[in-house]
Amino acid sequence: MEKDLHNLKMLVFDVFGTVVDWRSSVIAEGEQLGKAKGIDIDWAAFADGWRSIYRPFMDKVQNGELPWTKLDDLHRMMLGETLQKFGVDGLSDDEKENLNRVWHRLTPWPDSVPSLQRIKSRFVISPLSNGNISLLTNMAKNAGLPWDCSLSAENVQRYKPDPAVYLLAPQLFDVKPEQVMMVAAHEHDLQSARKHGLRTAFVHRPLEHGPVKGAALPPTDRYDIVAKDFLDLANQLAT
Amino acid sequence: MEKDLHNLKMLVFDVFGTVVDWRSSVIAEGEQLGKAKGIDIDWAAFADGWRSIYRPFMDKVQNGELPWTKLDDLHRMMLGETLQKFGVDGLSDDEKENLNRVWHRLTPWPDSVPSLQRIKSRFVISPLSNGNISLLTNMAKNAGLPWDCSLSAENVQRYKPDPAVYLLAPQLFDVKPEQVMMVAAHEHDLQSARKHGLRTAFVHRPLEHGPVKGAALPPTDRYDIVAKDFLDLANQLAT
Repeated sequence: MEKDLHNLKMLVFDVFGTVVDWRSSVIAEGEQLGKAKGIDIDWAAFADGWRSIYRPFMDKVQNGELPWTKLDDLHRMMLGETLQKFGVDGLSDDEKENLNRVWHRLTPWPDSVPSLQRIKSRFVISPLSNGNISLLTNMAKNAGLPWDCSLSAENVQRYKPDPAVYLLAPQLFDVKPEQVMMVAAHEHDLQSARKHGLRTAFVHRPLEHGPVKGAALPPTDRYDIVAKDFLDLANQLAT
Repeated sequence: MEKDLHNLKMLVFDVFGTVVDWRSSVIAEGEQLGKAKGIDIDWAAFADGWRSIYRPFMDKVQNGELPWTKLDDLHRMMLGETLQKFGVDGLSDDEKENLNRVWHRLTPWPDSVPSLQRIKSRFVISPLSNGNISLLTNMAKNAGLPWDCSLSAENVQRYKPDPAVYLLAPQLFDVKPEQVMMVAAHEHDLQSARKHGLRTAFVHRPLEHGPVKGAALPPTDRYDIVAKDFLDLANQLAT
């Protein structure tokens, strides 16, 4: 069903898990590195472990325990902790740095790029991500993500769910919050966005955490749009 | 001649005059508006007058006379002053606002887009402009400028030639200043960029100020690259 999109100008997207498949990308590069260096660990568990301390590390910035630290640098600290936990100690600094940059090389879900192209034909599209500006730029260049611009937590030196991040698009583009729609596969992100007046679109990404039972599709009336994938989102946006 | 581009990662571009032809765009929209509203003035002189107070208005921000004010809002103040100077008083607020947004709709010089596509195949490309983020985003979307990201004075709330603007790319992308090349049709911009360690490319745009005698091409040894147009720049970059 097409929605009332009166006055909608811009869509902003969560990236990790919503647009790109971080888990498969990290596993694939990990396995390749493991083969080359003879590191025999469960790279799926490694990917999950690395990602599992994402929120705690950002919280250290939000609560002032760390000064503003961009996500590349948080990822690097988290990597150190994860390597230690998995007993991996044979990597050089360059190898660790290169592994850390896997977050700049994440691959999109197969429907992301064609759907973004369609949505872009009618609206301004941008990531709204905790990823730093160079991460988002390199990822877009590598993966062919056709963003019109790249809005990042780094613009305001605050991480989601800080209000300043959600208000970036209305402030920079001189539009009302309700003229911006936040797209995410995570309900907590959408609920924060809605609290600050943005419209919301949930996109189901049941494979984000691998072949485990994923989150259910929420009721269709919980968000402005509930879509089963990006093609469905593009259809509901009448693009 | 191809240059030693060892280690060069990124090119950042001045926009007004270098990538887009602001003067012809403003004249064309002015003439159209004049016809519709019966305003019979010299729109070329109007465009030149509007642009001539660009630097003085940014200086008011740089010297603290005005708080941080994005370029859209400076353009709007400058427009008010210019309309008054030309005795134009028959425009509504919406019409003035729409005329002010002409800076979001400037047309590129004919060689800009194809050359940027070539340069983008090998390097990260971004504007480095006093234009605000929404202006740069809308301009790129409208004109098909294939930027990888959009770096703006608005990111640091300082106008060129403030060092913070020139240092944006090295800081955000974790590269050395000499791994970034500033491209501009204006020598003062390149000289400031060089002072902060960036490499420099001059591109000749003899028609920026219309059919008057334009600036001469500087000696080829004054900058890392001196190019007669964007195609020449793309050639010298071996892209």
